[in-house]
Amino acid sequence: MTTKNIAVFPGSFDPVTIGHEEIVRRGLGLFEQIIVAVGENAGKREFLDLALRVALIRKVFRDEPRVRVESYTGLTVDYCERVGASFLLRGLRTAADFEYERAVGQINRAMNARVETIFLLTSPRHTFISSSIVKDILLNGGDASPFLPSHVTREDLKFNI
Amino acid sequence: MTTKNIAVFPGSFDPVTIGHEEIVRRGLGLFEQIIVAVGENAGKREFLDLALRVALIRKVFRDEPRVRVESYTGLTVDYCERVGASFLLRGLRTAADFEYERAVGQINRAMNARVETIFLLTSPRHTFISSSIVKDILLNGGDASPFLPSHVTREDLKFNI
Amino acid sequence: MTTKNIAVFPGSFDPVTIGHEEIVRRGLGLFEQIIVAVGENAGKREFLDLALRVALIRKVFRDEPRVRVESYTGLTVDYCERVGASFLLRGLRTAADFEYERAVGQINRAMNARVETIFLLTSPRHTFISSSIVKDILLNGGDASPFLPSHVTREDLKFNI
Amino acid sequence: MTTKNIAVFPGSFDPVTIGHEEIVRRGLGLFEQIIVAVGENAGKREFLDLALRVALIRKVFRDEPRVRVESYTGLTVDYCERVGASFLLRGLRTAADFEYERAVGQINRAMNARVETIFLLTSPRHTFISSSIVKDILLNGGDASPFLPSHVTREDLKFNI
Amino acid sequence: MTTKNIAVFPGSFDPVTIGHEEIVRRGLGLFEQIIVAVGENAGKREFLDLALRVALIRKVFRDEPRVRVESYTGLTVDYCERVGASFLLRGLRTAADFEYERAVGQINRAMNARVETIFLLTSPRHTFISSSIVKDILLNGGDASPFLPSHVTREDLKFNI
Amino acid sequence: MTTKNIAVFPGSFDPVTIGHEEIVRRGLGLFEQIIVAVGENAGKREFLDLALRVALIRKVFRDEPRVRVESYTGLTVDYCERVGASFLLRGLRTAADFEYERAVGQINRAMNARVETIFLLTSPRHTFISSSIVKDILLNGGDASPFLPSHVTREDLKFNI
Repeated sequence: MTTKNIAVFPGSFDPVTIGHEEIVRRGLGLFEQIIVAVGENAGKREFLDLALRVALIRKVFRDEPRVRVESYTGLTVDYCERVGASFLLRGLRTAADFEYERAVGQINRAMNARVETIFLLTSPRHTFISSSIVKDILLNGGDASPFLPSHVTREDLKFNI
Repeated sequence: MTTKNIAVFPGSFDPVTIGHEEIVRRGLGLFEQIIVAVGENAGKREFLDLALRVALIRKVFRDEPRVRVESYTGLTVDYCERVGASFLLRGLRTAADFEYERAVGQINRAMNARVETIFLLTSPRHTFISSSIVKDILLNGGDASPFLPSHVTREDLKFNI
Repeated sequence: MTTKNIAVFPGSFDPVTIGHEEIVRRGLGLFEQIIVAVGENAGKREFLDLALRVALIRKVFRDEPRVRVESYTGLTVDYCERVGASFLLRGLRTAADFEYERAVGQINRAMNARVETIFLLTSPRHTFISSSIVKDILLNGGDASPFLPSHVTREDLKFNI
Repeated sequence: MTTKNIAVFPGSFDPVTIGHEEIVRRGLGLFEQIIVAVGENAGKREFLDLALRVALIRKVFRDEPRVRVESYTGLTVDYCERVGASFLLRGLRTAADFEYERAVGQINRAMNARVETIFLLTSPRHTFISSSIVKDILLNGGDASPFLPSHVTREDLKFNI
Repeated sequence: MTTKNIAVFPGSFDPVTIGHEEIVRRGLGLFEQIIVAVGENAGKREFLDLALRVALIRKVFRDEPRVRVESYTGLTVDYCERVGASFLLRGLRTAADFEYERAVGQINRAMNARVETIFLLTSPRHTFISSSIVKDILLNGGDASPFLPSHVTREDLKFNI
Repeated sequence: MTTKNIAVFPGSFDPVTIGHEEIVRRGLGLFEQIIVAVGENAGKREFLDLALRVALIRKVFRDEPRVRVESYTGLTVDYCERVGASFLLRGLRTAADFEYERAVGQINRAMNARVETIFLLTSPRHTFISSSIVKDILLNGGDASPFLPSHVTREDLKFNI
């Protein structure tokens, strides 16, 4: 088991939330290294640009040498192969989440059975937090700081809005 | 309890449906005043323009002095503070609805604990009716009148399509 | 609206949880009086006997004159008529909850359209708490106190286990 | 029952998947003729153009005289009337699917009670396959062939990507 | 297709509801014969005894020569083989229903791929009706007649309660 | 991370299924040791007695030294403490499963934050398999062998039925 205990935590992180941070920190109890992998999704309209999304997550985990932050293109399972990760890490919040995650997890396994998806439960106090809700709050001029990692400040996000 | 028995019924109402109308009328048994609040959502592509959406809802409730119709921008909980409403009123149709409404309701409570969201069940005969399905029917040249409030006529909608 | 602002909060409360307590306390912002109504369900195997269940809930709300605790038999909507309540109050935790509550709420409306069911969202930190999970903890010798109202002590429950 | 045993299998088929193929082939045990009806949806951004989508489905069923492939505009129930079909055929994969299909099925019945929607269960091995996931794989340069009907080759799709 | 257009509509029907009746009547547009098959389930506590359940359903369909009512033991797919039915007919009401029906339908297919399960949607006005809710109403002395087929009277059920 | 990479896979396993076997085998890619822990549940009616359930699971994993099979009483998180396990392993099949597992997982975390629950997705071909469905097949005289681990024979189960 020595060489393969690396997990990829993929997402668009637009923006990263306190819910994402918590899953990664708890995941460190299970994995030696976690790579937070920010997908470039040509089709999807983005709120924050890719470089800022990566920079924010790096700021969140700057104290944690076992977390690496990267962006990637192409299939997630191909990215796992490239970085030598045998695991995908995902958080589960709701039943709707689960149905979507199950489809993605099963298609990933069908494409590459060497990569296993591991799920953790989001904490009850973070269950209702999602990037899209945080984005809506920011776009409506609200204070999203209770839903953002403590290292992310309003100034960090002002560059973009 | 005298001063605060006002509820906001927020939505995009694009267009208002017979399901919306029913929730508001039943809500009048619980609240002294209901403000139907039409959100201006810059990000979302609209079908009917904001002024028409407001005008249609006003027509639906012109016989009901306890219903007020307004548009708003910004966070819904901030709007509630501005108009002195302690309650948000929402209808629930399906389990998918519920999961979405729960996230919104919990984030609203996290931002402003003085505003409580109250849910009523949509009637069985209206469970399948949504603005987006009504819009699809209209765009495909169908007769949506069974799903629209009785005060809304085909002519009311022709201006826009 | 003067005479009818009474709500019934029905259930088996076997035992009452911190989640039930929270819904009733928040419901007092909406209703002048709430009657916590403990159903006698001949068919269902009970954990605590009816008298103890009623006594525990009375202890929880002994500081709150607007809450009354009673037991009842027969249909819930008939009980509402007897006590002059126009509303049923229920908490919603999960999508599975919702589907069950919707069926019960719609059948109640079909039997008596004068009684309206009003739903509040359970707080995120109480979403996972149910009487049956608390019962399992108690039966397995665990400490259920974080999930019980603060007025309910281990001694209160010892009489029964 | 002689004249009406025709079913319409409507969808956007962008692109057709192995899951669609399976539902149609199993549906032939129940219906004398199945019309695969490719909807032109002006509002929705398409991946493959309409002519290619129709051509691919025709290729899949070229060995099956009881399957006809057509495109249509307007309401699906109106199309059923035009082609003399009393049934709509749909596959069900997940609970989320079901909630969407129920709303569409009930609105269709409300508009035309002569058309009945019939559901089959997708096979477990196809439950996670959807057009949108297949599209994502293709857009990310992955090999989608395990999820496509055997008659559809990479070359068939290259014209479009 | 001549010999196999028979469907089995299996259940415990404890008691039969207006929802069951509607699914069978609509199913007659698709199948030449429908066998309502009342399962004897040794493990499950019954409300009405098997003979009464069969008698009530026969009364409901006494005007319909294409409906046969029988009881059976053993696996449902084995029963289908014995009576020459290629189809199982089921109604779908809710997402929770669907998840249960999917498991049963897939296990049935795994045991006997010659038997296909066909689903119809329950009408919106019957979505909340189930045998267990009707049973609860009857046990609590309520009037269940709006939820029972019109041929079933209170006297029919008095023998048993 | 050296001392704590042990997971408990708890359940009633009444009986063990091919779905359980698969989750444990895949879990061995993540954990050094997995303890299959068969809960003694005084309240629940059992199909196979506890000793047989343990014996069957031992037979399934007799070739796998990293899997240990035990029975336990009391809270699952207390059992984890006793055996030095920091993880609970669970498989997820459906949205209904998820909602139940989320409640149990969150209550376990609330009682003991040192124990983390890890979820794997059941394979699509095993999604519909549960102990209760297998039990029903066996009680109805059907052939459940496709749903049982290959090491479990009909003779193994005959002692009990």
